[in-house]
Amino acid sequence: MATVRLWTDDDVAADARCKAVFDDIRATRKSDFVNNFWRALANQPDLLEQTWARVKKVMIEPGTLDPLTKELIYIAVSTMNSCTYCTHSHTAAARAKGLTEEQYAEFLAVVSMAAHTNSLANALQIPVDNEFLA
Amino acid sequence: MATVRLWTDDDVAADARCKAVFDDIRATRKSDFVNNFWRALANQPDLLEQTWARVKKVMIEPGTLDPLTKELIYIAVSTMNSCTYCTHSHTAAARAKGLTEEQYAEFLAVVSMAAHTNSLANALQIPVDNEFLA
Amino acid sequence: MATVRLWTDDDVAADARCKAVFDDIRATRKSDFVNNFWRALANQPDLLEQTWARVKKVMIEPGTLDPLTKELIYIAVSTMNSCTYCTHSHTAAARAKGLTEEQYAEFLAVVSMAAHTNSLANALQIPVDNEFLA
Amino acid sequence: MATVRLWTDDDVAADARCKAVFDDIRATRKSDFVNNFWRALANQPDLLEQTWARVKKVMIEPGTLDPLTKELIYIAVSTMNSCTYCTHSHTAAARAKGLTEEQYAEFLAVVSMAAHTNSLANALQIPVDNEFLA
Amino acid sequence: MATVRLWTDDDVAADARCKAVFDDIRATRKSDFVNNFWRALANQPDLLEQTWARVKKVMIEPGTLDPLTKELIYIAVSTMNSCTYCTHSHTAAARAKGLTEEQYAEFLAVVSMAAHTNSLANALQIPVDNEFLA
Amino acid sequence: MATVRLWTDDDVAADARCKAVFDDIRATRKSDFVNNFWRALANQPDLLEQTWARVKKVMIEPGTLDPLTKELIYIAVSTMNSCTYCTHSHTAAARAKGLTEEQYAEFLAVVSMAAHTNSLANALQIPVDNEFLA
Repeated sequence: MATVRLWTDDDVAADARCKAVFDDIRATRKSDFVNNFWRALANQPDLLEQTWARVKKVMIEPGTLDPLTKELIYIAVSTMNSCTYCTHSHTAAARAKGLTEEQYAEFLAVVSMAAHTNSLANALQIPVDNEFLA
Repeated sequence: MATVRLWTDDDVAADARCKAVFDDIRATRKSDFVNNFWRALANQPDLLEQTWARVKKVMIEPGTLDPLTKELIYIAVSTMNSCTYCTHSHTAAARAKGLTEEQYAEFLAVVSMAAHTNSLANALQIPVDNEFLA
Repeated sequence: MATVRLWTDDDVAADARCKAVFDDIRATRKSDFVNNFWRALANQPDLLEQTWARVKKVMIEPGTLDPLTKELIYIAVSTMNSCTYCTHSHTAAARAKGLTEEQYAEFLAVVSMAAHTNSLANALQIPVDNEFLA
Repeated sequence: MATVRLWTDDDVAADARCKAVFDDIRATRKSDFVNNFWRALANQPDLLEQTWARVKKVMIEPGTLDPLTKELIYIAVSTMNSCTYCTHSHTAAARAKGLTEEQYAEFLAVVSMAAHTNSLANALQIPVDNEFLA
Repeated sequence: MATVRLWTDDDVAADARCKAVFDDIRATRKSDFVNNFWRALANQPDLLEQTWARVKKVMIEPGTLDPLTKELIYIAVSTMNSCTYCTHSHTAAARAKGLTEEQYAEFLAVVSMAAHTNSLANALQIPVDNEFLA
Repeated sequence: MATVRLWTDDDVAADARCKAVFDDIRATRKSDFVNNFWRALANQPDLLEQTWARVKKVMIEPGTLDPLTKELIYIAVSTMNSCTYCTHSHTAAARAKGLTEEQYAEFLAVVSMAAHTNSLANALQIPVDNEFLA
């Protein structure tokens, strides 16, 4: 249960700023489904507008990294932040963008390998090689 | 300064298990440079052998994710774990594998976007949509 | 479900050390409600006594930071530690101390802004300016 | 040492987008000093523009939380993310905004208290009270 | 609900690689119960084999640290990573290995003490004494 | 460089509350060396007194966990919090209490194993088995 009310479609319809964002989410994603993240942010219109504008630009507009790679980076960050919500939502998004079981297995192998070596490097306080600073 | 001694090439030459790993690192990477991470792990031969075997398999053997994507996932995890060593070493590795400034900028945009939304989802304790659990 | 038993009021009544702490929690807060955190700590009387004494001193005794500011700092830490329990309990506490929707929205904007810039500073390993060390 | 080049004032002067942001930072802060964070972000103009626009709005424009409270929340997040850069820069900012030693001591008491109880709540996996979810 | 299917015993029986691992888990632990962690990893046979081989070597083979100490270290890491699953499973494992209430109370006191001082050292950015680097 | 001044012995000698704590640290540890952590906390006498009283009770008074086990738990927490200061100081403390290279190697193996499985359990969002909740 969230610390804030999750806005229903009726709530959103009654608020012009929120309605504009929800309309754009639906149009951009070509889907009527709007997930709870946005229904929670609707309580804070400024944060809602800013966050959606940024998600749209970073995750949806074409760039030099392909959309699936971006989702994998997103899941990696969300996993390390122990963010249940974002781990679920972006794993679903990665699947919708074609993530195969083989790719997911490799992703998990990289994430767990990094977590393993990070803990060693931090425990041992290994100094960075000059070669990496050049 | 590390919590353990960093092994020199002379130290390594005098220890058969460590020498075998260092030889394989050099042969696999086609480079004489062996970074401090391995020189620190040399104090724990079992961990050295196991970690190198795993890094070789996960990061170097061909798979379905391309090598640059794997490095980006690695940097994302290392950044969230505040691991200075691994952030530097894998950013250098990503550059060696062709990371462009445009790709790096997009990577940073995704990481910081994820950190932003993770903090909101965790602060608001947003429940996962049933649609993501299907 | 906790890893330990949550003590009922009957359990507490039968243990003098726990009863003294629970009595003081109720008297200090002027409320009969004692939340699960203390019911879990009741299994470890030393930790119960020490933690309550500290919470009372730090969060309840008057100081130079106002009570609401202290709650916001508490929620910020709890969010970054992905602590579901403390995020919920201290958001409720902040509301009880008068947190408005506008203040909560600004709090969330600051937290997510900090998470955003933290991830960039850690990814880029930006050196601290001398001006900040003076 | 950063993973990217830190832009000098000469570098910035030669790039219209970066120059516009740096000019606005100087004008807004009424100071010629521009810290390394922005000199690192100058390599990614989109991120530079977006981040500065957001910092300006969230941290500088007047709102319902006072500027010092916002800095304390920022330091709390940065501390939990082990972000050396942001901890130093925002502690300096808090001091510039009038943070007293008494307030700093109370801030540290709250942060360490929260870290203490977060670790207990997470270790004990304490279920959230229904009272907090109402 | 997991992001992957949890394999039933029938699923496992139909896959030679997974069956070999599950058989070894049961034989090693002298118990028919196989917990969800392995049922989730069964989707990624390489990760399943590698992780089980490592867990068996690190956590089960005799060494110089006693089994209960290893479980306490495991819970400490899992708590700081906010890993609900591993906190529960390794607290149960520690109890099965004889953890007493007194030991658990002391463990919690150390973990929360460390979390407290970590947050202070990171907030204050205290430089490491030369004496610790010798 | 710390965000606060590190108190010299002369500074401490001029403040009765700080002097009492420093005297007790020296008497308890039977050593004239007082590390920077306490010299930083000296700026906040209440925090200094409370933290030392707790460290003395938790880490120094005899209990049911042996002193070396407590140090290993402390290092595990400090590593996961990326606390450079506490990782160094408590690794030094563990060595002073007799930590052998074999024990340290096993400790590192457990910590990195836990970090590995934590990341998998969090990425896969594996539900806790009922058997662990009983």
